[in-house]
Amino acid sequence: MFATADEAESAFYDAFERANLSAMMAVWAESDDVVCVHPQGPRLVGFEAVRESWMQIFAGGATLRIRATEQRRFDGQSVAVRAVIERVTPAGEDAPVSLICATNVYELTAAGWRMTVHHASPMAEAPRAQAEEPPPPGYTLH
Amino acid sequence: MFATADEAESAFYDAFERANLSAMMAVWAESDDVVCVHPQGPRLVGFEAVRESWMQIFAGGATLRIRATEQRRFDGQSVAVRAVIERVTPAGEDAPVSLICATNVYELTAAGWRMTVHHASPMAEAPRAQAEEPPPPGYTLH
Repeated sequence: MFATADEAESAFYDAFERANLSAMMAVWAESDDVVCVHPQGPRLVGFEAVRESWMQIFAGGATLRIRATEQRRFDGQSVAVRAVIERVTPAGEDAPVSLICATNVYELTAAGWRMTVHHASPMAEAPRAQAEEPPPPGYTLH
Repeated sequence: MFATADEAESAFYDAFERANLSAMMAVWAESDDVVCVHPQGPRLVGFEAVRESWMQIFAGGATLRIRATEQRRFDGQSVAVRAVIERVTPAGEDAPVSLICATNVYELTAAGWRMTVHHASPMAEAPRAQAEEPPPPGYTLH
């Protein structure tokens, strides 16, 4: 039972890293309306469809290290959102090889805080800041 | 001033369809922490970065018809989430040509309900339901 959205968020990434299906599904609300979008995947709706997807992901056997960074928090009394960038490092790699943009929604249910939405998509690189050009000649005359 | 998250959501898609920048930015919370991810785009954080992105999108001049469908709602007193599938029809087309999965977050601010997160990503097709197989012979014997 998670007392806060942050506890649920920690449990989510912990279960994800450990590829532990029962721990993962203990984070999700047992509802027909939960929504999960894996990177470049379809939109899955409902506890069972979401459970099936994690089962398939974990069956792959790959272990990942995932750091949720650059968090933005939107906190209500019964609904909370965490928008993060997931830095994903596969086993055997030293540094993150993929950056995933994720929006996670939690709701306070009778069984504590639970995840109701996980929307993840591959992150495009931010446009580079335009190279600063030298000031036009007029500005340097004096 | 939007009295509900639904009013803000309607205004968002209305401004989007009309390519009206000031109407669009009237929907967003004026905060350094708002998050916007356009399909296959980078993660933009902060009102100004978000404003700049819509300005560029609207400068393209394309008008789109957008229907937000298959909504799932997560409502709190001060934070609300709408997870939708956007069916996007460009001008001149009869039917939607792209399906976008979007998670929209709204917060109740001093200036009414405002958008704080728009996370949109291209939707993959759902896996086809497995073709139903005829029942095994045992079930048809009688």
